[in-house]
Amino acid sequence: MAGPTIQPRTLPGFRDYLPELAIPRERLMDTARAVYRSYGFSPIDTPALEYAEVLLGKLDPDAEIQRQVYRFTDAGGRDVALRFDLTVPFARFAAQHAGELGTPFKRYHIGPVWRGERPQAGRYREFVQCDFDTIGTTSNAADVETALVIHDLMEALGFSRFTVRVNNRLVLNGLLESMGLADRAPAVLRSIDKLARQGAGAVVDELGSAVGLDRSQAERLLGVVSAGGGSRHVLDVVLGEAAGNERVAEGVARLTQLLDVAVEAGVPESRVQVDLSISRGLDYYTGSVYETFLDDLPGMGSVCSGGRYDDLASLYTRQPLPGVGASLGLDRLLAAMEELGLVGGVTTPAPVLVVQFSSGGLGAYQRLARELRGAGIGVEVYPDPRKIGAQLAYAERRGFRLALVAGPAELAAGTCNVKDLASRQELTVAQADVIDQVRKILYP
Amino acid sequence: MAGPTIQPRTLPGFRDYLPELAIPRERLMDTARAVYRSYGFSPIDTPALEYAEVLLGKLDPDAEIQRQVYRFTDAGGRDVALRFDLTVPFARFAAQHAGELGTPFKRYHIGPVWRGERPQAGRYREFVQCDFDTIGTTSNAADVETALVIHDLMEALGFSRFTVRVNNRLVLNGLLESMGLADRAPAVLRSIDKLARQGAGAVVDELGSAVGLDRSQAERLLGVVSAGGGSRHVLDVVLGEAAGNERVAEGVARLTQLLDVAVEAGVPESRVQVDLSISRGLDYYTGSVYETFLDDLPGMGSVCSGGRYDDLASLYTRQPLPGVGASLGLDRLLAAMEELGLVGGVTTPAPVLVVQFSSGGLGAYQRLARELRGAGIGVEVYPDPRKIGAQLAYAERRGFRLALVAGPAELAAGTCNVKDLASRQELTVAQADVIDQVRKILYP
Repeated sequence: MAGPTIQPRTLPGFRDYLPELAIPRERLMDTARAVYRSYGFSPIDTPALEYAEVLLGKLDPDAEIQRQVYRFTDAGGRDVALRFDLTVPFARFAAQHAGELGTPFKRYHIGPVWRGERPQAGRYREFVQCDFDTIGTTSNAADVETALVIHDLMEALGFSRFTVRVNNRLVLNGLLESMGLADRAPAVLRSIDKLARQGAGAVVDELGSAVGLDRSQAERLLGVVSAGGGSRHVLDVVLGEAAGNERVAEGVARLTQLLDVAVEAGVPESRVQVDLSISRGLDYYTGSVYETFLDDLPGMGSVCSGGRYDDLASLYTRQPLPGVGASLGLDRLLAAMEELGLVGGVTTPAPVLVVQFSSGGLGAYQRLARELRGAGIGVEVYPDPRKIGAQLAYAERRGFRLALVAGPAELAAGTCNVKDLASRQELTVAQADVIDQVRKILYP
Repeated sequence: MAGPTIQPRTLPGFRDYLPELAIPRERLMDTARAVYRSYGFSPIDTPALEYAEVLLGKLDPDAEIQRQVYRFTDAGGRDVALRFDLTVPFARFAAQHAGELGTPFKRYHIGPVWRGERPQAGRYREFVQCDFDTIGTTSNAADVETALVIHDLMEALGFSRFTVRVNNRLVLNGLLESMGLADRAPAVLRSIDKLARQGAGAVVDELGSAVGLDRSQAERLLGVVSAGGGSRHVLDVVLGEAAGNERVAEGVARLTQLLDVAVEAGVPESRVQVDLSISRGLDYYTGSVYETFLDDLPGMGSVCSGGRYDDLASLYTRQPLPGVGASLGLDRLLAAMEELGLVGGVTTPAPVLVVQFSSGGLGAYQRLARELRGAGIGVEVYPDPRKIGAQLAYAERRGFRLALVAGPAELAAGTCNVKDLASRQELTVAQADVIDQVRKILYP
């Protein structure tokens, strides 16, 4: 081609996913979909591009997100923007289709969102969110189930050491009410939200300087929300501290049912814990709140968070839509796994490579390969009749587990050599037995 | 909330996917991923947003796509655009990461693309493409495999009556060469591409008026490319017509191997047919070309198309990257299925609803549900202890197959009523036998 070439590059803050990372990323998404579906959440999808008014109408003009959103005028003169989360589009969707959807309505939505944040390690301007919500019910059964979904999701993603930390805004608000601090609740909750990151000393100071609590109030409050000794004991502490407060009593009753049902449903008690310091900064939440921490990566922050809200779509409809849900930070989790070396090394989704000895054998190779595919085993047939050593080197580089080698003699005899690329052992088997033999090696 | 609400609406030409359509749409995507992976294609992903220069640099400034692309200046002053297909980003990706990827490289990419086309029935401004390609090899084995992938994909999507029509540009170009029309090949191929839609008469006229062929030349050409009588006979016809032409001989040899391997690999001969009138308008293709038609919906056009190209990424790199691949028009296929009433009616991905008799039973219900989920069966627990009739009406409306009902008496006795919502039959079984019983009804 004539002329200079264009430098191939992505925009700052954006990234490509090569197979090494795209394979585990798709596995995470497949797993999230499977868990959400298993609980009866239905998929939905909404456009990436919406009217800017629809996406941003609710937000403070000074809010940071206003500066981060990708907003422009389209060819039809419309003021449009790329979605910056999946919650606002869901609110618009729920209001627009309320009659058709009916309630209760359970949906999941997995898709990319865009925010022009300053790029930093592990944070990109395009990232995938995996949200699930149950709307149209105030029943605590949905709050309980949300904790179960998060638990089963984390377990299905392959984690065993994690904790789902739960709290209820009713408990926090009732406690502040009982301490005469109801009018300062939003500021207090925002301070408490910093406890894990900044420590008790800094939060006590801030509750004094910024919120105006005296030191003994601040310390008493911190003592309650930091209480340890197990979920049941924590609930006893706050019940004692705010004796007679109805909100606290209701919040404690809801959390108690959550703990009871989780245990009866078979979730290990250590995996779901009450933590009164979890408040989630957002004013949006009114009941249950959830955060999820990997025990081995506490500094990473919560990987799956959410809560209960009184009204999803008040911006678009007068019909109240209460609900509860949570969101898995998939690309953030993947970036952490990448940093820790937990992913990578394999760049093929198929475990078996069929070596192409000669192009005359192609029909036999593809027949064998299609039989294995029909048995659920992925098979690549090497496209060129190169030297066997080069094809085996390719197989090892990509991370194939097995190679099947059959030259004219084997094809004539109806056999095939099955080579285990890890152990380097090779067996000659009848072609009719290849599926069994491959299964034995792949799933010993 | 104070003040007027914002009208919830999507932009013209964009649409929401409600569960009724999102469920089969995800099934189509799951199936495409499974088939691509089974052949060893690896997933990749690229950003939705790229430098406009990278996406559009290759295109004629007057090309229609220039007016269709969503292009704007970002907050950093960059000229950016939303991708309008997955091929251009793949070319950029392949050039940028060539060293790391190695060859041969097989990738699939499933994702949304955006084009501001005039909205029309079944066509939207945001739609999902499902592409797969093998690059870094000129071997016909990859061309043969492309036809097998398309075949297995269509079959896995649930179609039995379809035809993969294959051709090779070498045959067409060689034929035109032998007729002394090599210099007019692009215009001739663009006319031939209209054969299925406009008929032989219109194409003969156009070949005369617009391309300058005399009537006998045009009719002779149409006679060859419209030849019927089966793939082998069609190849004999063109070999006879262009006797001694090397390009025709090579194209015929490649198509013959494709037919032979497909049959040996177990593909019914009727499903893959040579059709010399398939040329694909794009100058881009240089070898094999593929189109796929549903026998019952011929007017819909090709649902999976592609071909072989000499050089994927000449815009970005001097390294030649030959390859072959195809693209499934997923949202177009879905829109057609929707129009034909082939999808819909079910708005839950789970087959089983557990009725909530009382909130006290929630632990038992979620335990039972988690056991079924562990056995691979999706289960929703109704969130409110409403009247059983209302819960069963909900189950029928959503399309659940079975309801499990257990009141205090059943829970105390360790039993559960299994209600088949289609046959209305109800059985009382021990809770330990629920999985077996549910399986019997779901998979008889």
